[in-house]
Amino acid sequence: MRRRVNFYECDPARIVHFSNFYRYMEEAEHAFWRAAGLTLTAVHHLGFPRVSATFDFHAPLHYDDAFEVTLRIAAMGRTSIRYACVITRGDTTIATGAMTMVCVEVGPPMRAVPVPDELRDRVEVAAPPA
Amino acid sequence: MRRRVNFYECDPARIVHFSNFYRYMEEAEHAFWRAAGLTLTAVHHLGFPRVSATFDFHAPLHYDDAFEVTLRIAAMGRTSIRYACVITRGDTTIATGAMTMVCVEVGPPMRAVPVPDELRDRVEVAAPPA
Amino acid sequence: MRRRVNFYECDPARIVHFSNFYRYMEEAEHAFWRAAGLTLTAVHHLGFPRVSATFDFHAPLHYDDAFEVTLRIAAMGRTSIRYACVITRGDTTIATGAMTMVCVEVGPPMRAVPVPDELRDRVEVAAPPA
Amino acid sequence: MRRRVNFYECDPARIVHFSNFYRYMEEAEHAFWRAAGLTLTAVHHLGFPRVSATFDFHAPLHYDDAFEVTLRIAAMGRTSIRYACVITRGDTTIATGAMTMVCVEVGPPMRAVPVPDELRDRVEVAAPPA
Repeated sequence: MRRRVNFYECDPARIVHFSNFYRYMEEAEHAFWRAAGLTLTAVHHLGFPRVSATFDFHAPLHYDDAFEVTLRIAAMGRTSIRYACVITRGDTTIATGAMTMVCVEVGPPMRAVPVPDELRDRVEVAAPPA
Repeated sequence: MRRRVNFYECDPARIVHFSNFYRYMEEAEHAFWRAAGLTLTAVHHLGFPRVSATFDFHAPLHYDDAFEVTLRIAAMGRTSIRYACVITRGDTTIATGAMTMVCVEVGPPMRAVPVPDELRDRVEVAAPPA
Repeated sequence: MRRRVNFYECDPARIVHFSNFYRYMEEAEHAFWRAAGLTLTAVHHLGFPRVSATFDFHAPLHYDDAFEVTLRIAAMGRTSIRYACVITRGDTTIATGAMTMVCVEVGPPMRAVPVPDELRDRVEVAAPPA
Repeated sequence: MRRRVNFYECDPARIVHFSNFYRYMEEAEHAFWRAAGLTLTAVHHLGFPRVSATFDFHAPLHYDDAFEVTLRIAAMGRTSIRYACVITRGDTTIATGAMTMVCVEVGPPMRAVPVPDELRDRVEVAAPPA
């Protein structure tokens, strides 16, 4: 996914507020599944809450910067999927992150269920970048 | 409602991003109904989408400023409620706004329905401030 | 400007939270000036705070909807610029809005100054749509 | 820090969007320093960008839930501070997180500098909860 930093995503330090990187990772996730032919919110009766999300920040992003979010599936468990994410601006690595989501029947209560074949069959676990 | 400006609500101009004022108005709205003994999201089968929202901005709010949001019901229609809102910091008027919401049966499609007595009986239309 | 609704922009009513429409209007504003060859934040020593912003909401936007934001300059004052904005999804009008910004020397205190020729010379006041 | 979940912080799954937990952690951080007599943005010429932030999510937070954010200093380095964070609702652990910030002279370019005594002298590294 490629896009530009919006003004409202920047904070008084004149850089992207770190909380927005998690939103960028999610945007890339939805674009990822859309590219695989699937709308995550349309998977019948299932939800995909996050069980963890992390980022290391290496360099700041500023207003109007064009940047790229690269997402791959790092691991596929029985009920969960782990993504790895790299955010870059040209040759500069801005941030590296990861996020794990779990498939649940939306409750209450939420109950973990196996990743449906509808998802599993469309994607592959990717090797980490060299 | 009283609270402080959060860092992440400010933009590179070092003032609260104007979009957040609409969120402050909504926070005050929910606090308003909570004070009247009601949780808006718990009104059975009804939703309250906005049909209009407006603000005039008179002075900026900065990080860590303590401010106050005053909300009153400006008009009560058959299917809609109009709020008037003033945001102040001490004696300084920061912004004045208004918002109209309509009661709907959540659809799809959404369909406007009369404001339920559950809401109507708890509040009064207030005179504008002198 | 065209783009899709992000998941994190939607609320529990499963529609775009109304506060985000003001952010869409700002995204379109920055895209507008970028198309005119200008980065708003790079205009030396000037800031452009909003003095008013308003929207009427006609129909909801949902997750993953593709939508379009059309912005035109409705009026150019000595120190201020007024935009008019229409948000559409295909043939459906979603929202119509307006926003006025003022040119200021960033303070404190902020002081209104004439719209610089750098902006004035690049754009035209547009007639309203038929 | 104690507060309630705002409606606009929840997503179509009717739970707090995970990105907002990082904002809650930051709110607690600023409240923490304010309680220690310090406004982070007023430390002369210094900024405090994040170098990492992480959360594990154990249970969802819903609209209107009252919750508590507990922050402690997990480590104090020469140029950085690491926080540990627990978010709870009553007896339920909602999320556990951590965040590392670094002291920089705001640039460009940013340059890491020692944590000033102004910060160091006001706080203590806390033992983890039993």
